[in-house]
Amino acid sequence: MRTSIATVCLSGGLVQKMYAAAEAGFDAIEIFEPDLIAAPQSPEEIRALASRLGLTLDLYQPFRDAEGVDEAAFGDVLHRAEAKFRLMQRLGMDLMLVCSNVGTATVDDDEVSAGQLRRLSDLAATYGIRLAYEALAWGRFVDDYRRSWRIVELADHPNVGICLDSFHILSRGHDPKQIEDIPAEKIFFLQLADAPALSMDVLSWSRHHRLFPGEGSFDLPAFLGHVLRAGYDGPLSLEVFNDTFRQTDPVRTARQAQRSLRWLADRTAELLGEEAGPLPRLPEVTAPEAFDFVEIKAADTSGVEVLLEQLGFDFGGRHRSKQVRLWTWGSARVVCNDVPSASPEPHIAAVGFDVADSDPAAERAARLMAPPVHRRTYAGEQALRAFTSPDGTEVFLSHAEDWIGEFDGGVSRPDGNAARIDHVNLVQPWHSFDEAVLFYTSVLSLTPQPTQEVAGPAGLVRSQVMSSPAGGVRLPLNLLPNGQQGQAQHFALACRDIIEVVAAARERGLRPLKVPGNYYDDLVARFGLADDLVATLRDLDLLYDRDADGEYLHCYTETVGEVFFELVERRDRYDGYGAGNAPVRLVSQAG
Amino acid sequence: MRTSIATVCLSGGLVQKMYAAAEAGFDAIEIFEPDLIAAPQSPEEIRALASRLGLTLDLYQPFRDAEGVDEAAFGDVLHRAEAKFRLMQRLGMDLMLVCSNVGTATVDDDEVSAGQLRRLSDLAATYGIRLAYEALAWGRFVDDYRRSWRIVELADHPNVGICLDSFHILSRGHDPKQIEDIPAEKIFFLQLADAPALSMDVLSWSRHHRLFPGEGSFDLPAFLGHVLRAGYDGPLSLEVFNDTFRQTDPVRTARQAQRSLRWLADRTAELLGEEAGPLPRLPEVTAPEAFDFVEIKAADTSGVEVLLEQLGFDFGGRHRSKQVRLWTWGSARVVCNDVPSASPEPHIAAVGFDVADSDPAAERAARLMAPPVHRRTYAGEQALRAFTSPDGTEVFLSHAEDWIGEFDGGVSRPDGNAARIDHVNLVQPWHSFDEAVLFYTSVLSLTPQPTQEVAGPAGLVRSQVMSSPAGGVRLPLNLLPNGQQGQAQHFALACRDIIEVVAAARERGLRPLKVPGNYYDDLVARFGLADDLVATLRDLDLLYDRDADGEYLHCYTETVGEVFFELVERRDRYDGYGAGNAPVRLVSQAG
Repeated sequence: MRTSIATVCLSGGLVQKMYAAAEAGFDAIEIFEPDLIAAPQSPEEIRALASRLGLTLDLYQPFRDAEGVDEAAFGDVLHRAEAKFRLMQRLGMDLMLVCSNVGTATVDDDEVSAGQLRRLSDLAATYGIRLAYEALAWGRFVDDYRRSWRIVELADHPNVGICLDSFHILSRGHDPKQIEDIPAEKIFFLQLADAPALSMDVLSWSRHHRLFPGEGSFDLPAFLGHVLRAGYDGPLSLEVFNDTFRQTDPVRTARQAQRSLRWLADRTAELLGEEAGPLPRLPEVTAPEAFDFVEIKAADTSGVEVLLEQLGFDFGGRHRSKQVRLWTWGSARVVCNDVPSASPEPHIAAVGFDVADSDPAAERAARLMAPPVHRRTYAGEQALRAFTSPDGTEVFLSHAEDWIGEFDGGVSRPDGNAARIDHVNLVQPWHSFDEAVLFYTSVLSLTPQPTQEVAGPAGLVRSQVMSSPAGGVRLPLNLLPNGQQGQAQHFALACRDIIEVVAAARERGLRPLKVPGNYYDDLVARFGLADDLVATLRDLDLLYDRDADGEYLHCYTETVGEVFFELVERRDRYDGYGAGNAPVRLVSQAG
Repeated sequence: MRTSIATVCLSGGLVQKMYAAAEAGFDAIEIFEPDLIAAPQSPEEIRALASRLGLTLDLYQPFRDAEGVDEAAFGDVLHRAEAKFRLMQRLGMDLMLVCSNVGTATVDDDEVSAGQLRRLSDLAATYGIRLAYEALAWGRFVDDYRRSWRIVELADHPNVGICLDSFHILSRGHDPKQIEDIPAEKIFFLQLADAPALSMDVLSWSRHHRLFPGEGSFDLPAFLGHVLRAGYDGPLSLEVFNDTFRQTDPVRTARQAQRSLRWLADRTAELLGEEAGPLPRLPEVTAPEAFDFVEIKAADTSGVEVLLEQLGFDFGGRHRSKQVRLWTWGSARVVCNDVPSASPEPHIAAVGFDVADSDPAAERAARLMAPPVHRRTYAGEQALRAFTSPDGTEVFLSHAEDWIGEFDGGVSRPDGNAARIDHVNLVQPWHSFDEAVLFYTSVLSLTPQPTQEVAGPAGLVRSQVMSSPAGGVRLPLNLLPNGQQGQAQHFALACRDIIEVVAAARERGLRPLKVPGNYYDDLVARFGLADDLVATLRDLDLLYDRDADGEYLHCYTETVGEVFFELVERRDRYDGYGAGNAPVRLVSQAG
């Protein structure tokens, strides 16, 4: 099947949008009328450009307030439509989107709407144009695809069919299953959009919060499954707009869109149990269940190495050809990379995910248009597969056994408290948050958990955890408040007995982030903890959380450059991150 | 009456919040518990600081999930409460907010809730503490102030009363009139918050979108009127949090809060027809019905002067002591101010509003804590009254007759098309938008019109017009999309015959902003205009709008530095701004 994107999805002028769509590999575009009106190019020039770029112009949209009106008003509709039909001829286009009436409808009668659509179709036919009628979720009378289909059936004209838009259907909670009852040849067009679970008026929801499939809460694979079972074989087109990517680079947004479609098509084929999907299938990759390593980069990482040693890491050796040192503690591996040209502040530059067979994983990432990372390797060294994630952090698909031999001179002591990396917390700039959710969903097959909000002294931080099925990989993505940048990233090390670990670390000079005394007074009120436990927590600056599944003890190091560390102990089946303690941490860090 | 603010309203740490509240003139604060928990200071230190700052600690909040629970759970509530009562003693506090149960309520029975509140009050009484019970709009069972009042009546304990919060009452559409039936001595506390008209779940609405009174859509003066009629004489306290000022300077937010309360108290007294209000009355000032002047400032304003001359302005003279030149056209006055040290790009530095008697207007502004502007004046020159608005633009309360004599050497030709300033469009950074609405509402008595959204090539622009009753002053405030800055400001000149004016201006070399040909093709389809009118519009790059009230013809100049001009002709009673044409303008300006 062909892929298409509406120009309203992309920022910039029409020509810029067309270049972006073509570059991302789309076959077609929908022309959003205001984009054409504001463009300095003539319709003929746009048509010629599309042809040069290999894009077909599949849908002209939207034509509003066409039916359900009185006869006088319908005369104006025909006049307005004919001007647009002539314009479409100049563009070489033959399909127009007609939305259900929002503004001018006065007649709530299927026969009337059908009769007017039929007359509009008669006129359209003389220009060789077909009409795709769509029920908007906020249509005055027609706001349900089942009703718009009934009207199309009544209109009974070869030049009118239906347009299905997942947002308009799923936002209203309408069951998409009945799509399967619509004859394929009457489904003229398909528009796909996801959205977060929000409870707000559907028009604002649509206007500000649509997302690409895989970024929100709608079950798009199930939706597309119904459309495919109906026999639809037209373009898969995205119509998505929100406050974020109206203003981001259109080339980047177009690639994100294409990634979304490829992921969706693959998931849908999987759901339908079909070998061939609507788009070429992707190599199947199970989600990694462990972090392979974290890389810290800076002009000088020695401050981080002091911290690592205090925490309990062992020196794991020097890389044989690069200014890179490995630190290990149990299965936790941290690579410190001194790069004179890098940002001088230590930061998390890369995260390795433990992937037993990196070839299909890398092939999948490439097919999902993840930008590859190239690092120089020398003879005998493992060329690791890596891609750049939306926030710039490099994602490695790796396996320690393949590369650890390149490090010489390390030591490793047995340690009953041997740690592993529990989670890596990546702070996202506002414009790459949703894109990051799609990236980790599609490329690594991680699953987004429900979003949470945490109050800090300078605003709410939105947090969404991406995790593997067994919880071996946990990747909280934090969205900073409006206008803020550069909060530190961190990663957490899980150990068996945090009290023992922190006590020993303090002997080695570690100074955990200071926790205020009022916090411990509140702990007593909230949880009724034993006095000696509270005294220990207070003494070691440990934070505490408890829920029905278990307990969570944790503490933070001070921040070095743009990174800090967390130590955690999960008791029983505690599955959270101590979110209730985040305000205390954020205030102490701001302190 | 006393003024109070909840610490949750302000960003930063608790001590920083307290300093900000004191500096803005508040008498008291509500302590938001998480602020205390995260503070490194002990309760005793906070108490001592409050005393030093002259702040009383009027409300400890919130205590959650206290009633409507089973007996086992209620034991935990008493345990938890007692720890907080002890803490409040250390703080020297005697009033605690108890919210209706959101999380743990299992018993939907007024008698049970009342009985539990009574037992909690018994315990509180032993610590000399009183409880203010509040119905949250999203309470599990109790979500209406009338029900919380019934429960307080049933509890019948001297240590339990009601807390009224305007948001929880007005967001649910509950009639505040019945507040008057509550005995004054049982209204223990009053929290005030405004909010924009939104249709979304009330919890998100509350968490992200509360505003200070005067910034949103609730009728706070009417609300407060009911509370005052009930006889309440406790503090007027603000409990407002939103995504914006959680992260702005707390001192600035506190001043905004104090301004809001003073305005609200004054409006309420006016509404009740009372000479003495709950706070000292403000000098009454009617809204200005004309702009007095606009000032353009730059290192070199000559590029703007070329434009003004092309548009039809006459040179109005040089200021006798400053590098300032006046340009006039009818009643439109533009002052060009060359300031070597200023931002080199021409920008709108000040707007003068025609105020016949500037003394009470300036007194009102000062009482509303508008920051005064000081400009050097020489002997014999008028010292104009001016204040800095939230976005930094200076607002002058002036009257041309008072200052125009300081300009020498001007000319002024009769012109049948003599213009006036129709509107001044000020682009607001995201953090000062709501504050600007309150500023112009309170200081200048302008009225906010409903907000609109306009799609540009780089995101949605939110626009709200502040206007005078007769429409003589129109001040559209535009909020830029997330993360964007520095879009140009502009002001519009209304003339009688724009076609004549633009034709003449082109003769003088003016090149209006180019409008794409597709726009005119669409005009024909939309409005069915006569061919010769469309040809003229196309020839002169004029934009067109029409609604039930009349027609609007307008065009834009190119941008010079950070400013551009609009020419408009309003036909009949057209009252808009051609919002439908904004996307075309924005794309053309983006080039």
